Amino acid sequence: MDSPGFAPRARAIGITSPGSLLPPYGAVVGVLLHLFVYFVTVLYSYAGKLFSKNDDSKVKKQDIRTPHDIHHCKDRPIRNGNIGQRPLSINPERLKDFGEEDYLNGDVKTWEMKIVSRSEELLGDALDPVSHSKSKTYNKLIRFEDISAAAFKIQCGVQKTPCMYSRLSKQYGMDIYLKKEFLQYTGSVKERGVLYLLSSLPQDQQRNGVIVASDSNFCMAVAYHASELHIPVFVIMSTSTSLARVKMCRDYGAMVISYGTTAKDSQMHARRLAQENGYLYLEEEDSAIYLAGLGTLGLEIYEQVPKLDAVIFPAGGHCGLLAGSAAALKHLNPHISVIGVESESFPILQQSLRTGQPVKDQACSNHQFYGDVSGPCFGTNSFQLTGKLVDKVVTVREEDILIAILRLLEYERATIDAEGAIGLAALVAGKLPELKSKRVAIAVCSGNLELPLMRQCIDRALTLDNRMCKFSLLLSDCPGDITKLLEMLAREDVRVLDIKQEHMFVTSDLFTNEVTCIGETRDKIHTVQLRNALLDRYPEMKWTER
Amino acid sequence: MDSPGFAPRARAIGITSPGSLLPPYGAVVGVLLHLFVYFVTVLYSYAGKLFSKNDDSKVKKQDIRTPHDIHHCKDRPIRNGNIGQRPLSINPERLKDFGEEDYLNGDVKTWEMKIVSRSEELLGDALDPVSHSKSKTYNKLIRFEDISAAAFKIQCGVQKTPCMYSRLSKQYGMDIYLKKEFLQYTGSVKERGVLYLLSSLPQDQQRNGVIVASDSNFCMAVAYHASELHIPVFVIMSTSTSLARVKMCRDYGAMVISYGTTAKDSQMHARRLAQENGYLYLEEEDSAIYLAGLGTLGLEIYEQVPKLDAVIFPAGGHCGLLAGSAAALKHLNPHISVIGVESESFPILQQSLRTGQPVKDQACSNHQFYGDVSGPCFGTNSFQLTGKLVDKVVTVREEDILIAILRLLEYERATIDAEGAIGLAALVAGKLPELKSKRVAIAVCSGNLELPLMRQCIDRALTLDNRMCKFSLLLSDCPGDITKLLEMLAREDVRVLDIKQEHMFVTSDLFTNEVTCIGETRDKIHTVQLRNALLDRYPEMKWTER
Repeated sequence: MDSPGFAPRARAIGITSPGSLLPPYGAVVGVLLHLFVYFVTVLYSYAGKLFSKNDDSKVKKQDIRTPHDIHHCKDRPIRNGNIGQRPLSINPERLKDFGEEDYLNGDVKTWEMKIVSRSEELLGDALDPVSHSKSKTYNKLIRFEDISAAAFKIQCGVQKTPCMYSRLSKQYGMDIYLKKEFLQYTGSVKERGVLYLLSSLPQDQQRNGVIVASDSNFCMAVAYHASELHIPVFVIMSTSTSLARVKMCRDYGAMVISYGTTAKDSQMHARRLAQENGYLYLEEEDSAIYLAGLGTLGLEIYEQVPKLDAVIFPAGGHCGLLAGSAAALKHLNPHISVIGVESESFPILQQSLRTGQPVKDQACSNHQFYGDVSGPCFGTNSFQLTGKLVDKVVTVREEDILIAILRLLEYERATIDAEGAIGLAALVAGKLPELKSKRVAIAVCSGNLELPLMRQCIDRALTLDNRMCKFSLLLSDCPGDITKLLEMLAREDVRVLDIKQEHMFVTSDLFTNEVTCIGETRDKIHTVQLRNALLDRYPEMKWTER
Repeated sequence: MDSPGFAPRARAIGITSPGSLLPPYGAVVGVLLHLFVYFVTVLYSYAGKLFSKNDDSKVKKQDIRTPHDIHHCKDRPIRNGNIGQRPLSINPERLKDFGEEDYLNGDVKTWEMKIVSRSEELLGDALDPVSHSKSKTYNKLIRFEDISAAAFKIQCGVQKTPCMYSRLSKQYGMDIYLKKEFLQYTGSVKERGVLYLLSSLPQDQQRNGVIVASDSNFCMAVAYHASELHIPVFVIMSTSTSLARVKMCRDYGAMVISYGTTAKDSQMHARRLAQENGYLYLEEEDSAIYLAGLGTLGLEIYEQVPKLDAVIFPAGGHCGLLAGSAAALKHLNPHISVIGVESESFPILQQSLRTGQPVKDQACSNHQFYGDVSGPCFGTNSFQLTGKLVDKVVTVREEDILIAILRLLEYERATIDAEGAIGLAALVAGKLPELKSKRVAIAVCSGNLELPLMRQCIDRALTLDNRMCKFSLLLSDCPGDITKLLEMLAREDVRVLDIKQEHMFVTSDLFTNEVTCIGETRDKIHTVQLRNALLDRYPEMKWTER
């Protein structure tokens, strides 16, 4: 058994003699064939991997392109964050691709249906401190995925607005970045939430149409995006609405109906029309979908400004922006402070947080100025998110907002309304000293300041900023006396805006007149200089303090 | 010969008998070995290609990153076209990497050196119709490469401003895209030329510093970018300069020196200081470098808006922007119309093109309003480029500019100065009827409208836009007569801005007063309605036409 076993092996080593070498040759051929097949297999599989890598990337590219097709961005360059491209109309027929079935079943508050939404519950559950008391991380508290999904889905419909370093940084001693959300087509951040909300509607509701009341930024956003999505849209405006707003709304593509003298009247009418005609009545609320849409702002700020220390948002009645963005920011980096700012006259959020209950129907005396910040509506969702995630809520006075509007006008060349300027107002008021030499982003989220309001704001703000002055003095009515005053004002480089002589109701000596003058100065120092110079010469001068 | 030839083959087919099959087995092994080696080689070379492909892309990525390193953008995200990132200071020590040796030798006009620049000559030669009479294509006429190089080199120092679809489109019956160049840090397009100019300066000149005079946008851009590049920068401003501008300039980091009562005085002083201290005196001119920097705007517009039909630029004295951008646009697509707009009061470019010679020192009565559009300087370079490449130069009245400012304020939420608004003014004036239903981009290139000027502009513009009205009528001085007028105005929804009673110099019946009223209406139709209603009731009413 040993020899026949050894013989072929020995023979196989000595290759020179043929005949007896046959079986080993067969073995060699077999081994070579095996080796060949093995090698081919290995190399093929490796090449296959490389191939398949390419194939994968091809597939991925297609995957990436497909949603663009859905959003109709295919042929449009999306450089510069899609800025500059007119958002093309999204075909409602394709909206089923948006995955609205996931969200559907009524995230949208309607007056005829009572619905508790799936996503709302999720958010609510996540926020419940009892059920998740042991795992209270930010990841668990919010659904960041909702916001990132929203960011992806609305990217072709809203602008990626710039978030720019501001020249105001020096003045307030910190690096200020302004998120210029007022550059959106309708001039407000609401577009983000509204577009996501509208595109998530069921198809038959899209066909029936939507209806809104009032002239708020929310309505403008609905008017624009609904008509871009080919959803019939009706806007009920009270007769007190300014014509400019009506025209704007019509320009966006909405059917505008004038009804009622107050906002409440138009809301009632809108609800009635909705019931009668099957429209969906929309108003600003805090469903998860709407909040996710608004929260994309936080995402974008985080993406655009590296190493942020704090972000300031407007708070107040509709604090969906604050809540949604806080969810995004705190998920990405819990060390970023999120700060809300509201008006001192109606500190709804502060009160609500103090009482632990959303305060309803706080009266606002000056809705025209405060706009959406003064809204009475306040939802549980955004309230809970705000309570969990927002680091600080501060209040500012009307004066601070006016000066913030002025600063944004002069330094940023933009006409911003109270809602947009309220964030900066917190810095103007010096309410956030802890942010000194930090890197701070401010959401300038709305820029719909109407012209008459703007002119009044500027005049008030100039007075508040000590750049207007008013004084009265007694001058004899002999020729040349008033000239001397005007000469002096010219020397002091004061622009005279108004000068008046009072003849009646003057209690001074006969042959004297009271002259009242309004002048424009450069700044506070200049104003003080003028005042001192005037007092030197006219000790009885009466200076009007603002 | 046949049998031995056939035998082995036959044997080879019958595999069962060993011994005589050896040579064919050897052949089979050889063939298999060859096949194996061949296969391995083929697969290896293919895998190698795939590998090397990956290696290439790695190398490319490194290549792409390297220039970013030069520009110090390494750690900064450059999403959204670098918007939102504060342009970090560029270290002058690294500026040799910018390749300034190529351009050097005095593209910058200085008063102490007389230099003809290399690039200027190239551009001049290229424009010479004699030397290139047979190949007068756009490719030959300009150095597009200069502009694309500039675009690359300045990309980290200036903002990639958005070019957005405007709501004004509907009103003017065309697709209007506004290139919001006023969003630059110093609020004007000049930054592009200035940054390129400054970064191209020789190193020793950068160490010595630069000096400018006046408060133009050019000076602001120099002040900012020089200090960002760590170049010492001095700005001589006349005493008549507004304090806001002085402050702005200091904020940008310049050393501001107040000297002289007129712009000419400060310029003389700046030149003297430059000679004494070795600073480089800079003023706006049309060297190829500066034009290439400005021309990057054309490049960006082309990139941001697909399928453009026309682009509108401000023209006038400093038409470097028009010339440079025209060069870029016409190179990329000769079918894009390039249109320049200048003021009717001093149509410098139109005159120059008519006479074939740059007109010098045209008087401008209203420099404060027109800003850089009214500049007297006019270079051969930009004149030649404009003559060759610009399709049309139109003029507009001051009224048109004022209304354009108002439109941009209301529709775009931006305070734009005359230079920035002059492009839109051409549409307001209806000077470009051929652009109806076309896709038009307008360079809104400057937004430094000072507050006092802004307020005046708004008031004037509202009057021009038929949204202010003034009328006088005779009322008896019995109680209640003036109330009836005010009631009527309230019914007509007119906001009363001023009401005055004239007692003296009245020639009407005794016991009557002349009452003059200034009111604000919504629009032209509303104004006409009011006028008719007033005439119905007070047939002797005097209406003040604007």
